[in-house]
Amino acid sequence: MNVDIDRLWSDLETNGGFGATVRDPPDRWGRTVRCGSEANRRAREYLVERLEDADLEVRVDAVGNVAGRWTPPGADPDADPVAAGSHLDSVPDGGIFDGPLGVYAALEAVRAMQEAGVELQRPIEVVSFTEEEGGRFADGLLGSSVAAGERSLDQALALSDGETTLEEALDVIGFRGEGRLDAAAWDAWLELHVEQHTELERVGLQAGIVTDITGITHCTVTITGEANHAGTTPMAERTDALAAASELVLAVEAAATERTEVDEAAVGTVGSVRVEPNATNVVPGVVELGIDVRSVETDSMDQVVAACRGELSRLEAERGVETTFERPFHLEPTPMADRCRAALEAGAAGAGVVATSLHSGAAHDSMHVARVTDAGMLFAPSRDGVSHNPREWTDPGDCAAATRVLSGALAKLAGV
Amino acid sequence: MNVDIDRLWSDLETNGGFGATVRDPPDRWGRTVRCGSEANRRAREYLVERLEDADLEVRVDAVGNVAGRWTPPGADPDADPVAAGSHLDSVPDGGIFDGPLGVYAALEAVRAMQEAGVELQRPIEVVSFTEEEGGRFADGLLGSSVAAGERSLDQALALSDGETTLEEALDVIGFRGEGRLDAAAWDAWLELHVEQHTELERVGLQAGIVTDITGITHCTVTITGEANHAGTTPMAERTDALAAASELVLAVEAAATERTEVDEAAVGTVGSVRVEPNATNVVPGVVELGIDVRSVETDSMDQVVAACRGELSRLEAERGVETTFERPFHLEPTPMADRCRAALEAGAAGAGVVATSLHSGAAHDSMHVARVTDAGMLFAPSRDGVSHNPREWTDPGDCAAATRVLSGALAKLAGV
Repeated sequence: MNVDIDRLWSDLETNGGFGATVRDPPDRWGRTVRCGSEANRRAREYLVERLEDADLEVRVDAVGNVAGRWTPPGADPDADPVAAGSHLDSVPDGGIFDGPLGVYAALEAVRAMQEAGVELQRPIEVVSFTEEEGGRFADGLLGSSVAAGERSLDQALALSDGETTLEEALDVIGFRGEGRLDAAAWDAWLELHVEQHTELERVGLQAGIVTDITGITHCTVTITGEANHAGTTPMAERTDALAAASELVLAVEAAATERTEVDEAAVGTVGSVRVEPNATNVVPGVVELGIDVRSVETDSMDQVVAACRGELSRLEAERGVETTFERPFHLEPTPMADRCRAALEAGAAGAGVVATSLHSGAAHDSMHVARVTDAGMLFAPSRDGVSHNPREWTDPGDCAAATRVLSGALAKLAGV
Repeated sequence: MNVDIDRLWSDLETNGGFGATVRDPPDRWGRTVRCGSEANRRAREYLVERLEDADLEVRVDAVGNVAGRWTPPGADPDADPVAAGSHLDSVPDGGIFDGPLGVYAALEAVRAMQEAGVELQRPIEVVSFTEEEGGRFADGLLGSSVAAGERSLDQALALSDGETTLEEALDVIGFRGEGRLDAAAWDAWLELHVEQHTELERVGLQAGIVTDITGITHCTVTITGEANHAGTTPMAERTDALAAASELVLAVEAAATERTEVDEAAVGTVGSVRVEPNATNVVPGVVELGIDVRSVETDSMDQVVAACRGELSRLEAERGVETTFERPFHLEPTPMADRCRAALEAGAAGAGVVATSLHSGAAHDSMHVARVTDAGMLFAPSRDGVSHNPREWTDPGDCAAATRVLSGALAKLAGV
C-alpha cells in the first residue's frame, strides 16, 4: 500500500483554505470553522466530493455526521464495518491539522488500499463527526455523542447557540441528513489525531499509540467572603474571598503535583477566575473558580478532587468563608481496546515506523465511540506541542508516516 | 446654638430623592447621582436654593464647585473664611449620607449660628465639591483637586468620560460658573462625613475626630506564564500565571497583617484580578492584579509594597514567570491640623458629645484641602459600617450630635 502524501497534503491544504484566517507560508496557517458556518459547509462539501471521487458511498445523518463507506473486494457488504476518522470543525483561529488530518488520512488509507488491490472481509467507513470542538451548540464531541447513543437525536437537534438550533444551522448549510450514524454497529474504530503535546518530539518518534484517554472532571467552586472597603476594613476584620481562593489554587496545584509521583498523567488546573466586585479598592466578596482535573486513573482524579474539597472545609473553618462545590462535568478515563492497539502496533511495524505508547490528555470523539465499540487512537507529532493556534504544525513526512500506520491497522482490523 | 434636626433631616431626605434608586423606609435608601447628571443638577439647584434661603452669598466656580458665604455679625468680610462642607455626588446606588451629610450639616451649623446670633470674626463658607466619588471624569476628589491647585482649571474642564467633557457636562446642567474656588484662601476647613466603618459603633460613641487620612498606593502587577492545554501539559512543565499570582495575593495579605503589629492602620488588598485566557481547560497564561495599599504611615505602605516586589522577584526566580510592576497612583498620608482637631474637641465638649480619635481609611476631599490650609475631619457613625450601598445609614440623633460638634468647632475657628 502506497500512501500518496501529495494527494493527502493537497486535501489538507484545500480543507485548510475553508475559513482561513492567517496564512503565512510555509508553516503558519489558521482557520475558523465553526459548526454550521459557511466555511463548515464548504469543508463538508469538499469532503463529500473527495469521498465520492474515491467511490465511497456517502451518507449524512440527522446531526450532520458524514460517513463514506468502501466495500473492498472480497468483503461481506453486511459485515460490521471498521471505521476511522475525526472531525473537520475547528476552534476560532485554530490550526489545519486538528481534526482534518484524521479524516483525510482515513480517506487516503482507503485510496491506498484501493490502489493496492487489497482484499478485506469488512467494509471500511471514513467518518467526520459534527462539532467536536464545541463552543457553539455544545461543549464538544457533539456528533460522536449522538453516534454513541449518549445523546438522543432530538436532544442534539434542539441544542441552540441562543439564536439558532443545531437543526436550523444544519438546514442552512444543507447537511441535515437522515437517521443516526451508529457507532455501536462498527466492528472497530481508529482515530488519527495530532498529539497537541511534545512527547513524540521529545522521544523523536513519528507515531504514538494511545493507551488511554484521560478522564476529565470539571469543578465549579464559589467562595463567599465579605466585600468591604479596602481602606476602612482592618486586616483582622476581613473575610477576603480572593485570599481564600488563592489558597485553594495552590492546594489544587500541590495535590496534582504530589499525585504525579505515582501517576504522571495526573493534572489539576484552576483555569478560570471571576471576582466580585473586582475593584482594586474593594476587598473581594465572592470568587468563582473553574477547575479542571484529569488523569487516566480515576483514583488520581478522586484524590485531587478530595484535596480540593478538604481545602474548602479548612478555608471555611479557618477563614470564615462560605463555599460551594459542584462537579458539573465528569468523564471517566477511557482505555483504548487492546486489539485496536495491537492493530496499530502491527500497522507501525508493517510501515517501518517506530511507535511509542502514550496517553491522551485531551478529549476526543474516540471517548464516546469507545463506550460502544473497540476504539484505538494514533497520534502524529505536533511541532512544539502547539495546537488550537495557527502555529499548529505537523510535517508532511510525519503525516505520511502516521497515515501508513493507520492504513496497515485498518487493513489488519478489516481483514479479520 | 440649637441644631434643628428636623430641618437638617428634611434637607437630607429631599436631597436623597434626587436620583433615588431603592427607597425602603425607614432605613434603606439608595441614590445614583453621577457628576453632570439630571439628578446632580437637581441636587445642586436644591442646595443653591437652601443656601439662598439662609441668606448665604452663593458662587459657582468654573468646575462646578458650589460655595455659600455667610458673613456673621461682627465679622470682617475680607478676612479669610472658615469653610466646611463635602460633596453631593454619589457612587451608583450609593447611600444618602456619604457627602450630603457634610454639606447640609455645614449649612445647618450656619443656620444655628444665625439663629443664636453669635458674633464671629471670620466669614463662614458652606462648600460642595464637584465629583468626589469619581467614575465619570476622574478617579475622584475632582473639585477639591482644583480648589487646592493640584489640577488646573483647564485640565479639569478637558476631562472626558469618552463622549463628553466636564466642561460640556457642567454647561448642560447649568453649573459651569466662573473662576476658581481657592482652598488656600480659607483660614481653615472642616468636613463632617460618615465613618464608613464600625469603630464608632464598636466603642459606642457619636463622633470621631480624625487624626490622619490614610495614604493610598495602587499597584498594578502583571504576571506572565505560559497558557497551555490543561490536559496535555504535565504539572512539571507548567508556568502557571494564576498559581504564581495566588502566592502574591497571600504575600500581600501576610505583609499587611504583619505590619499591623506596629501600625494598626496598615492594610493591603488585592481587589481585582484579570486572567487570560480564563478558560477552565487552559493553564492561565497571564494574570493582572490590582493592589491597594494604605496606611497613615508612609513606612508601612513602603514596607507592604517592598514585600510585594520581593515576592515578584522570588516568583520570577522560582516559577519562571515574567512580571511587571507599576504604581500608577500614590497619595501620601495626610495628618489633620492640630488646631482643627482642637476645635473639634472643643466643639464636642461644648455639645456634650463624647468623641474619640480615629484615622480615616478612605480618601476624602479634605486630603486635597489639607495641602493648602489647616483641615480637620469629623466622623459620624455608619450603621454596621456600611457605605456605598442603599443600606448606608446614620441615625438622625447621630447626625444631630455630629452637627452640634461641627457648629461649635466652626464657631471656635471663626471666632478667633
